[in-house]
Amino acid sequence: QRTGFAEVVYCSGKPDAYLADIYKRLLAEQGEVFGTRATPEQYELVRRQLPDIVYDPVARTLKQERPDKVRSGCVVVCTAGTADIPVAEEAAQTAEFFGAHVERLYDVGVSGIHRLLDKVDLLQQANCVVTAAGMEGALASVIGGLVRNPVIAVPTSVGYGASFHGLSALLTMINSCANCVSVVNIDNGYGAGIIATQINRLACK
Amino acid sequence: QRTGFAEVVYCSGKPDAYLADIYKRLLAEQGEVFGTRATPEQYELVRRQLPDIVYDPVARTLKQERPDKVRSGCVVVCTAGTADIPVAEEAAQTAEFFGAHVERLYDVGVSGIHRLLDKVDLLQQANCVVTAAGMEGALASVIGGLVRNPVIAVPTSVGYGASFHGLSALLTMINSCANCVSVVNIDNGYGAGIIATQINRLACK
Amino acid sequence: QRTGFAEVVYCSGKPDAYLADIYKRLLAEQGEVFGTRATPEQYELVRRQLPDIVYDPVARTLKQERPDKVRSGCVVVCTAGTADIPVAEEAAQTAEFFGAHVERLYDVGVSGIHRLLDKVDLLQQANCVVTAAGMEGALASVIGGLVRNPVIAVPTSVGYGASFHGLSALLTMINSCANCVSVVNIDNGYGAGIIATQINRLACK
Amino acid sequence: QRTGFAEVVYCSGKPDAYLADIYKRLLAEQGEVFGTRATPEQYELVRRQLPDIVYDPVARTLKQERPDKVRSGCVVVCTAGTADIPVAEEAAQTAEFFGAHVERLYDVGVSGIHRLLDKVDLLQQANCVVTAAGMEGALASVIGGLVRNPVIAVPTSVGYGASFHGLSALLTMINSCANCVSVVNIDNGYGAGIIATQINRLACK
Amino acid sequence: QRTGFAEVVYCSGKPDAYLADIYKRLLAEQGEVFGTRATPEQYELVRRQLPDIVYDPVARTLKQERPDKVRSGCVVVCTAGTADIPVAEEAAQTAEFFGAHVERLYDVGVSGIHRLLDKVDLLQQANCVVTAAGMEGALASVIGGLVRNPVIAVPTSVGYGASFHGLSALLTMINSCANCVSVVNIDNGYGAGIIATQINRLACK
Amino acid sequence: QRTGFAEVVYCSGKPDAYLADIYKRLLAEQGEVFGTRATPEQYELVRRQLPDIVYDPVARTLKQERPDKVRSGCVVVCTAGTADIPVAEEAAQTAEFFGAHVERLYDVGVSGIHRLLDKVDLLQQANCVVTAAGMEGALASVIGGLVRNPVIAVPTSVGYGASFHGLSALLTMINSCANCVSVVNIDNGYGAGIIATQINRLACK
Amino acid sequence: QRTGFAEVVYCSGKPDAYLADIYKRLLAEQGEVFGTRATPEQYELVRRQLPDIVYDPVARTLKQERPDKVRSGCVVVCTAGTADIPVAEEAAQTAEFFGAHVERLYDVGVSGIHRLLDKVDLLQQANCVVTAAGMEGALASVIGGLVRNPVIAVPTSVGYGASFHGLSALLTMINSCANCVSVVNIDNGYGAGIIATQINRLACK
Amino acid sequence: QRTGFAEVVYCSGKPDAYLADIYKRLLAEQGEVFGTRATPEQYELVRRQLPDIVYDPVARTLKQERPDKVRSGCVVVCTAGTADIPVAEEAAQTAEFFGAHVERLYDVGVSGIHRLLDKVDLLQQANCVVTAAGMEGALASVIGGLVRNPVIAVPTSVGYGASFHGLSALLTMINSCANCVSVVNIDNGYGAGIIATQINRLACK
Ligand SMILES: Nc1ncnc2c1ncn2[C@@H]1O[C@H](COP(=O)(O)O)[C@@H](O)[C@H]1O
Ligand SMILES: Nc1ncnc2c1ncn2[C@@H]1O[C@H](COP(=O)(O)O)[C@@H](O)[C@H]1O
Ligand SMILES: Nc1ncnc2c1ncn2[C@@H]1O[C@H](COP(=O)(O)O)[C@@H](O)[C@H]1O
Ligand SMILES: Nc1ncnc2c1ncn2[C@@H]1O[C@H](COP(=O)(O)O)[C@@H](O)[C@H]1O
Ligand SMILES: [Mg+2]
Ligand SMILES: [Mg+2]
Ligand SMILES: [Mg+2]
Ligand SMILES: [Mg+2]
Ligand SMILES: [Mg+2]
Ligand SMILES: [Mg+2]
Ligand SMILES: [Mg+2]
Ligand SMILES: [Mg+2]
Repeated sequence: QRTGFAEVVYCSGKPDAYLADIYKRLLAEQGEVFGTRATPEQYELVRRQLPDIVYDPVARTLKQERPDKVRSGCVVVCTAGTADIPVAEEAAQTAEFFGAHVERLYDVGVSGIHRLLDKVDLLQQANCVVTAAGMEGALASVIGGLVRNPVIAVPTSVGYGASFHGLSALLTMINSCANCVSVVNIDNGYGAGIIATQINRLACK
Repeated sequence: QRTGFAEVVYCSGKPDAYLADIYKRLLAEQGEVFGTRATPEQYELVRRQLPDIVYDPVARTLKQERPDKVRSGCVVVCTAGTADIPVAEEAAQTAEFFGAHVERLYDVGVSGIHRLLDKVDLLQQANCVVTAAGMEGALASVIGGLVRNPVIAVPTSVGYGASFHGLSALLTMINSCANCVSVVNIDNGYGAGIIATQINRLACK
Repeated sequence: QRTGFAEVVYCSGKPDAYLADIYKRLLAEQGEVFGTRATPEQYELVRRQLPDIVYDPVARTLKQERPDKVRSGCVVVCTAGTADIPVAEEAAQTAEFFGAHVERLYDVGVSGIHRLLDKVDLLQQANCVVTAAGMEGALASVIGGLVRNPVIAVPTSVGYGASFHGLSALLTMINSCANCVSVVNIDNGYGAGIIATQINRLACK
Repeated sequence: QRTGFAEVVYCSGKPDAYLADIYKRLLAEQGEVFGTRATPEQYELVRRQLPDIVYDPVARTLKQERPDKVRSGCVVVCTAGTADIPVAEEAAQTAEFFGAHVERLYDVGVSGIHRLLDKVDLLQQANCVVTAAGMEGALASVIGGLVRNPVIAVPTSVGYGASFHGLSALLTMINSCANCVSVVNIDNGYGAGIIATQINRLACK
Repeated sequence: QRTGFAEVVYCSGKPDAYLADIYKRLLAEQGEVFGTRATPEQYELVRRQLPDIVYDPVARTLKQERPDKVRSGCVVVCTAGTADIPVAEEAAQTAEFFGAHVERLYDVGVSGIHRLLDKVDLLQQANCVVTAAGMEGALASVIGGLVRNPVIAVPTSVGYGASFHGLSALLTMINSCANCVSVVNIDNGYGAGIIATQINRLACK
Repeated sequence: QRTGFAEVVYCSGKPDAYLADIYKRLLAEQGEVFGTRATPEQYELVRRQLPDIVYDPVARTLKQERPDKVRSGCVVVCTAGTADIPVAEEAAQTAEFFGAHVERLYDVGVSGIHRLLDKVDLLQQANCVVTAAGMEGALASVIGGLVRNPVIAVPTSVGYGASFHGLSALLTMINSCANCVSVVNIDNGYGAGIIATQINRLACK
Repeated sequence: QRTGFAEVVYCSGKPDAYLADIYKRLLAEQGEVFGTRATPEQYELVRRQLPDIVYDPVARTLKQERPDKVRSGCVVVCTAGTADIPVAEEAAQTAEFFGAHVERLYDVGVSGIHRLLDKVDLLQQANCVVTAAGMEGALASVIGGLVRNPVIAVPTSVGYGASFHGLSALLTMINSCANCVSVVNIDNGYGAGIIATQINRLACK
Repeated sequence: QRTGFAEVVYCSGKPDAYLADIYKRLLAEQGEVFGTRATPEQYELVRRQLPDIVYDPVARTLKQERPDKVRSGCVVVCTAGTADIPVAEEAAQTAEFFGAHVERLYDVGVSGIHRLLDKVDLLQQANCVVTAAGMEGALASVIGGLVRNPVIAVPTSVGYGASFHGLSALLTMINSCANCVSVVNIDNGYGAGIIATQINRLACK
């Protein structure tokens, strides 16, 4: 692959026949296959053809992974609340599929800052930290002030009212006064996982 | 006064003759006078009539205060950065003019969270905390997670690019996951100072 | 509790098993339990385990409260129209759960200003007034001009067209020319109830 | 005139030579002339040619009016604050130039609702009420609840921060729960004056 | 009625029991009753109690009108396309219920300007023209250039993409270079009908 | 030139030395030179080196054109008002420089629709119509309903208040119910001139 | 037809009876009929009356076309991804129905730029290129840099998060630094197809 | 330094006395000093105290750097146009100051894609690519499709009209279909330089 990554299936909206085919083809070609944004119905469909396929209803990933995969380096994936976990898991499982060792720090949002501060050592060991947060998205700035490696911030659509489906969190993160923070699209755990993998690979070379 | 507050002069855009008159009238009626958003030129103008008037070029307040004023209770005014200080001082001096004891905690933004955490005791003693922050405005949420009394968040127009002159900070603060945070208009230090005074007065009764 | 408030359950989107467990655990620990944004289905679910649980389909609260609770002070909760009552009740019941005495003034919007003016005495006795309004949200400013204690304004998503799901009311309230008005998120009755409780507690100390 | 109104000069940005010419031509043709958004420099320029021209530096109108004009009916023009007066005067003088009798009620904003309520009789006699207000623009709704004839609401760019140069007031007024309120562009006193004149003329026929 | 209008029922979201009661009460008190935004289900519900109630599924009005009503004056209601007719009919039937004679000019949008120009005489006879248009909303400006009485512009949510549910039409209408145009909320046919009635009544006095 | 167009100079913000050089180089290479968005100061500067350069202070073009140029086909350039002429001239002169015959129809906005309708024959002969309009931008739709060839709509930043510096006109034009309308950036007369030239060339082949 | 195009049916939201009638009438009058935005249900409905009607579930077109149609010239229709194909097909089939020869280049988005560059010859032969793209919409600019004839850019609502249902792609395209790009409404394949047809017709004359 | 970076001076808006002091202090402490957003006046001021200070009027950096600095790794900094160079230079000089080897690829925007494609080898050698682009910002996506390491996208405020001071470019970049793209604030070359340095350091370890 020119980009250094095997092809990933973005399941959302794929027609049934096409989805089953692409899963079979990629598994045959690559020995493993990874997809995101899969529905339970798509899982049932693909499972009929590939009985060993694994579905995670929280992350909405649909995958069959090589058993012998070695994971290296260190990526930390954090969330502000429990509602951000689906996005965080999309990021974490993407990074794991592409060979990164991942640590999870969930529900460490700023309203309970002490749970986060207890984990500063782990954060500082990461080659890259992925931060998923909705509502006001302040977690990215707090983490950005604690580490010396890049923070990839993923705004999530969690929230209501003036969160505007993730826009408020996106603006918070783009304006972060912590200089190591860069931002991907709302709910784009997949993109954050890819970038974290790239950085982790550079650090492991 | 029906509202419990002496009349305050909003100097911005007032014609010269009118401004000088209102300062003289209010000083005569109240024995003291307080104004906000004054320019250096307005200071020179008023000083010609009221030689004891005091101007603060940072807060842009223009005032003559009773010497014997007793201040009670505790309001804490915080800023994320030094550029937020003009707004914070507008709040602090408003609260002081109306009788609150004010403590200042400036430049304790989330990129240096430890400076803030060193002051948790002070924050927890406050009857009300005013928090002025621009850019991503995350400070309000962090403070909101540390205290049990109300936090008045003032978004400031400090920042550039996607800060949109304070809109980003406003959205951050309105979406705060800390439940004790409520928000006033961008750069409205005066309003925050009034509300902090009201809460402090209730606590001191 | 560090924040001075028992844990409250935000029921929206909680998985069934998790919701039932958290209700049982909190009732055991606290002797009472309070949740917001509950659906009728969640009520049925929790009731199977906790037969004394009470559901309010308007406020969408799901709670079991200590019978002997004493309520003190005075919080007034107002709405502009009848469609704002669900948000107002979330605020009112939150404040009541945490010990505030609450008076309700519903449907006193500016298109019938006289119904509001008849109640000025009550408004002026409140330690804090919570104002829920959608559409143009003008009620907060009118009330703000009548009282000397803080007004917590809750924009509601009531309206259509250019109300933009509460954004118009939010902007109205943030721009209020009444200085005692501060604002929480659209439909955030819970947050308004917490802040009103904090202010009322300070006044009752 | 097909539209029922003599030609009015919108002075803003007109080249000097063109402006002087159009004033001379219109005065010759119509026996009077009316212009809006004129600068002091434009006044000096036109005065050199038409020595009887009259400039109002607050309303920024530049006009020479027939001495014998009879004004009929009743239009009331209100403002929330003193800073809205330039827009209100543009409306009032437009209506007067086109033959309406105008009453002014300035600085009757909702933070001092009693000054407004004292004038309910006058408001109810108006064939049309023009309401100029910036910041949160709540005045239009309050007046709309008190009268039985149309209210033309003019949002003004008065305010700061989240007033967004009049957008907040515009949204407030468009969402007015008072059904007799319709809205013109931000700072468009001229348009409001024209519509008020049209309604007043229909009532006087 | 202080406002000069009988009470109208805004059916949207009203609980069933409450809706039936209010229809019965108003019919008893007023001898007729008018409601907007009614669903077919609400019609069935009310019809069980008031068998003579009439439902218009296009305008979504639900009404029982005095048979002997005399309508006077002239209001013209226009639409740009056929999809704007529901909003236009809400306006037209409101004005008719309150005694105005109404003429309808539907589907005369600017892409077929000649159909509109054929009706200039009718437009110029109207005391008030109501214009409902979505998408780009240009019709209001074209009509505004043809008449000498007020035009009430109603943006509709008709359109897709960058029409933003009526926002684009609203902005078009607010910026109209025709000075006789004022604007109400998106889809607010009712408000436009009330204001047209007020103007028509003044003209008929 | 791969694109079929000689290089054009976008003068805005170019450093002085660089601007003089590029004008000299292009004139040498091409025998003529065309630039847009030039200031009077830039004209003086370039004129010192190229005495035959021609500056149009309205269109802000700075050019030296081959005397023997033959112009063919037909492009019509329209404006709604006189304030839109600078943008229209940028379009017209661009098309002329690249060989199109251009007809101008200025100040034919919808508030005086008859001036436009008098010119329908000319509009229908054009291979392409460029329409520059600010404020509500309705002219593009009206013209789009009258012709059978493409209309390039240029929103202009002319207007105030809710015109939002051309955004309102842009939205109007993008939502045009006339299917032959496509849109370029606000004030982008140059781009419209290029596209009109391309279409005119195809028609002249 | 004054506009040079037969009447096309915009099926979205048309009542059943009306839809069947209009299809029958147009087929009778024109010998063929073309409609857009048809649902499968509408297809079933129309087919009962016109058994030879053809439905394309991807493009959502519903048509019966003359068998002997000759197509001339060259329009190229491109998409960035597969999800943009419905919009592209609406454009392509519209152009084909009105007599243009159309070439399709699908899934040539900028993340695989080489697939696009392989087709530069085809792009340069087109009289007009239609480009449908969602998300960041960068394809229009890349194509605009490769051709000398007009590019009609159609933003699509494909994407999530900060794509804001096509707004992001629309802004990208409107700001295109390629001067030959003009833009139609989000998802408006039909409009793009009409304009491409107009340009292609001019080139074929 | 906890963050791994020496203190950098953000010169914008710093009072004169404070600026001179901080430059002297940092040079004494660190042996070198780096500042951004400096004006020519600030350069004159600082130069009076530190005669060896170097000012770059394009990047607006003000620095004195250790002569013996070794730069390692590879960061590529690209711009779409020449007007983006100030932002790019802020990024490039930041990365150089902190020890990265930087290659510059300026003016390789998508309207001349071949200049970019000639440099694919260099892009693919970079540990991180920084891409500064305004207007439609499409360059980030094109580069993102060509490399396997992270791309840091910096939207610039270059553009006019609907570029909304960089917002359009920001949205383009956030929606990039290239998964390796993450985004910082508009014009934030400094932040991009820091993140590129962090990634480059990890790759060089
Ligand atoms: N959750 C996701 N969000 C954004 N992009 C994704 C996601 N999952 C996969 N992708 C991208 O989508 C590509 C496949 O898209 P498609 O060809 O439409 O299936 C993958 O190669 C990834 O680059
Ligand atoms: N209606 C509400 N709106 C906003 N926040 C709420 C609401 N109800 C509860 N909360 C907050 O949500 C917290 C619980 O969130 P969770 O851990 O997701 O259940 C509570 O402690 C409250 O701080
Ligand atoms: N203050 C104003 N705001 C909006 N429109 C105005 C104003 N003053 C005058 N006009 C309109 O502008 C027209 C004259 O415009 P112009 O031809 O540009 O001078 C008048 O006939 C009015 O319709
Ligand atoms: N997909 C489409 N998007 C926008 N406009 C369309 C579309 N399809 C057809 N139209 C236009 O809609 C007109 C018919 O509209 P109607 O009279 O509502 O059926 C046609 O003549 C076209 O101008
Ligand atoms: Mg950053
Ligand atoms: Mg809050
Ligand atoms: Mg306030
Ligand atoms: Mg209204
Ligand atoms: Mg108007
Ligand atoms: Mg169009
Ligand atoms: Mg362009
Ligand atoms: Mg990305």
